[in-house]
Amino acid sequence: MAHTDVLDLPLVLLSNRGPVSFGRDSAGRTVNRGAGGLVSALSGLAEHLDDAVWVCGAATEEDAVVAREAAGKALHVQTLPVPHLVDSAFGDASADGGSNKPADGPSIKIRIVETDPFAYADFYSVWSNPILWFIQHGLYGRAYSPDFTQAEHEAFENGYAAVNRAYADAVADEVRARGGKALVLLQDYHFYLVAEHVRQQCPDVVLTHFVHIPWPGPDEWRVLPADIRERLLTGLLGSDVVGFHTRRYARNFVLCASELLGLPIDLDAMTINVGDRVVRARYYPISVDPAALDATLASEDVAAHVSMLRYIFLGDDRQLMLRVDRTDPSKNVVRGFQAFRTLLEQHPELVGKVSFLALLQPSRTDVPEYADYIALIGGVVAEINARFTKDGRQPIDLRMVEDFALAIAAYSICDVLVVNAIADGMNLVAKEVAVVNGRGGVLALSETAGAHEELGEHAVTLHPFDLQQMADAFYSALTMPLEERHRRLAAAAEQVRTHDVARWLSDQLADLRRIAGFA
Amino acid sequence: MAHTDVLDLPLVLLSNRGPVSFGRDSAGRTVNRGAGGLVSALSGLAEHLDDAVWVCGAATEEDAVVAREAAGKALHVQTLPVPHLVDSAFGDASADGGSNKPADGPSIKIRIVETDPFAYADFYSVWSNPILWFIQHGLYGRAYSPDFTQAEHEAFENGYAAVNRAYADAVADEVRARGGKALVLLQDYHFYLVAEHVRQQCPDVVLTHFVHIPWPGPDEWRVLPADIRERLLTGLLGSDVVGFHTRRYARNFVLCASELLGLPIDLDAMTINVGDRVVRARYYPISVDPAALDATLASEDVAAHVSMLRYIFLGDDRQLMLRVDRTDPSKNVVRGFQAFRTLLEQHPELVGKVSFLALLQPSRTDVPEYADYIALIGGVVAEINARFTKDGRQPIDLRMVEDFALAIAAYSICDVLVVNAIADGMNLVAKEVAVVNGRGGVLALSETAGAHEELGEHAVTLHPFDLQQMADAFYSALTMPLEERHRRLAAAAEQVRTHDVARWLSDQLADLRRIAGFA
Repeated sequence: MAHTDVLDLPLVLLSNRGPVSFGRDSAGRTVNRGAGGLVSALSGLAEHLDDAVWVCGAATEEDAVVAREAAGKALHVQTLPVPHLVDSAFGDASADGGSNKPADGPSIKIRIVETDPFAYADFYSVWSNPILWFIQHGLYGRAYSPDFTQAEHEAFENGYAAVNRAYADAVADEVRARGGKALVLLQDYHFYLVAEHVRQQCPDVVLTHFVHIPWPGPDEWRVLPADIRERLLTGLLGSDVVGFHTRRYARNFVLCASELLGLPIDLDAMTINVGDRVVRARYYPISVDPAALDATLASEDVAAHVSMLRYIFLGDDRQLMLRVDRTDPSKNVVRGFQAFRTLLEQHPELVGKVSFLALLQPSRTDVPEYADYIALIGGVVAEINARFTKDGRQPIDLRMVEDFALAIAAYSICDVLVVNAIADGMNLVAKEVAVVNGRGGVLALSETAGAHEELGEHAVTLHPFDLQQMADAFYSALTMPLEERHRRLAAAAEQVRTHDVARWLSDQLADLRRIAGFA
Repeated sequence: MAHTDVLDLPLVLLSNRGPVSFGRDSAGRTVNRGAGGLVSALSGLAEHLDDAVWVCGAATEEDAVVAREAAGKALHVQTLPVPHLVDSAFGDASADGGSNKPADGPSIKIRIVETDPFAYADFYSVWSNPILWFIQHGLYGRAYSPDFTQAEHEAFENGYAAVNRAYADAVADEVRARGGKALVLLQDYHFYLVAEHVRQQCPDVVLTHFVHIPWPGPDEWRVLPADIRERLLTGLLGSDVVGFHTRRYARNFVLCASELLGLPIDLDAMTINVGDRVVRARYYPISVDPAALDATLASEDVAAHVSMLRYIFLGDDRQLMLRVDRTDPSKNVVRGFQAFRTLLEQHPELVGKVSFLALLQPSRTDVPEYADYIALIGGVVAEINARFTKDGRQPIDLRMVEDFALAIAAYSICDVLVVNAIADGMNLVAKEVAVVNGRGGVLALSETAGAHEELGEHAVTLHPFDLQQMADAFYSALTMPLEERHRRLAAAAEQVRTHDVARWLSDQLADLRRIAGFA
């Protein structure tokens, strides 16, 4: 097919991280395919289209070199089975030592945008993280932070706004190269100003912006400087559709348009009137790729981990609680352990019987709030292990690692998965466990994780600030009859398998077809 | 008249602090009239009715003694000109040494409720403050606080819920004593469970609950344990009308009923369907008593303060910025001074020309967050005064005092009033300044103070987290042409004088008449 089947339009994607990233080793340039369901789903879409391009940022030094070589043009990259640059679309193929080859598998066009490093730092490390991340996850203790000084205002102007403009120009360039009409899919909180810029340059686009993190109500957005929050909202309203993971986030967005911009809304229809345009808020819960998870689960690497984990944690009728998270304060790791402490205090018969394995990936350790939070985690773990170790067994096994095979192995045999986030856009770990767990694992899900809206009825609900409630919920999960555990898990797995990441994308495209009048 | 003129019903009021409070000095029992616009307005209403009673808590030891003597009955108190207990309604008049006298001025019936001191401490010092106060002002830094343990759950049950039940029983008792039909006016965040209890016992009441502090959206309420937030909301929904200071709070309340209880709402009409009843959210901005302020302004005490303040702060074309607040983190005193520092940094010509007088009343110093906050205030003031003192003049004059005459004097001559609260139900200081200022004082009002919804168009808006914006706003207020200053102030004064506290009450009663079908 020549175009996106649903819209008969060429496709332009934008995300901060692209589908491939370049490196360099002794043999020359390397090409690595990005991980994760989002990249897989969007790559799958783009690979099947003749006329698609993915605009993304330079994530590595070699990405920047490649971007400079391409001089503002798109590159042609084969993604599978072995990722490599394809000759045809790259004018200066000899520059990388002749490693380019013709395509013999699915391929994709990418356009890497390189921006000034100082502007990028203000864009990424000041505004996207931590400010927007903190606002959208409700993490600021407002008596003390944030403060917006001249420095933050300048970082917005010269960083976030400038980088958004550069990416918007690249997107608009690609749209114009396709005759000025295209389906444009923008991703996430890095690019709230792009839609408006693109629409100004290319008024005939069909444009969706998908937000992958929570969208809080107007009270939280009022923490931002008024001019900045208005520009962010106005920027997003350049879209035809603004997509979120849950109904709650979509409603909050519509309420923001009303309360902060004074625009007319229909809260039930989730529409916003912007001049003579109608902008729709929609929700499409992102998901996982069950086939890929099944394949990983079947690997020898995972099997070896499973044996080891069983040996350590599951002999003698013991039980395993699990969490897999980045060390982000929004994940609420400390209160999760405090609730576990309450559980052991109130149910001493569980001491020595229940272990809590935490696979935590250190994250943004250059941000003081994150570094402090890791120290707090270590402190509470030491205190609990000092108090409740029995027969040489520590109740908590804290591992600061990122090991996908180990995580999948742990998913498959845990009795309880703990997701007690303060706020979490979706939380794909819950969906991964639902697919691969073979032990009747109980999902213990925060009511404020996006996944709860979809899987809550099959889960045990956690209230992330209520230590006593979480301890009670853990107890109820650990003592739930095995039959009920398996029944709930099967229902959750069925929900995820029938609502996978491919469906996340196809539902959006089907809606766009209706909305854009192509049906 | 025999009953409330608008409803032809007897009146039962409830608030935590009553219209009078008892003490004891060497001459025996003393009776003190409460201060503030709310007490004045509600007293004024009750004094004019034959059949009204005010239920309140014991605020002093002597209040508790009086409550015990009254043994569950109402007392009759004359409020003006000299407050005293009136003989007729008090069975055991001799008990206080014969100080009771017949009424020769306006009088009021009060019923003081004494509760178990431990229950009261849990009700007041654990749940009402800080928890509900912090939630409703958005003050928690959620990564670290709050934690709800078994102790907080028990404090809710044995404290907040138990005390609410005791007050509700007293209210219901007074309603039954009036034939089971009465207009019941409940006040503030201490009593969210009362309306439902009263309605269960006396289904024929017409009941309004007025909330005097901000009402945030559902995201903030999700911080509370689910069972508790549902009970608080359900309790309030026992009312016919839930009143707030601003449209924003009223809308947030309606959204909470939808998001947290799943009830059908009409957001535009601000109604909630609860079974076969319709509960209305309404907003009535509370206000001041301009005549009382005018009288105070004319007093010798104030005149003496004015002379002294002029001498200290206003010679040689100098200008005075002013803030008058409790030392509550929600008042955002630290950021106010930081913005003032930015102003002096960026406009050195103002150093030595502009003073900032802060009259701060220490508040809740037993709560660690409040004690810490006072230390922060002191720190930033010392830093700024060390840096910007010129010709022996310190830029900031920080006085930890509560002196109403001094405050009125300062109101009357300030050039800029600073209200930069993170959140503030209304902020009556802004309205007091609008009434008494004679210098074209500019109101610099936080967009998140309730007063901003009413007076914002005449004020300079402050964004409480945006130090640069606040500094710019201060500069714009200080350099505003005098004519524009006087024009804005006159408009604000006119708004307050035509929307005084008597109107706050009469608007509610007029609405109730329509709602209850008495029109």
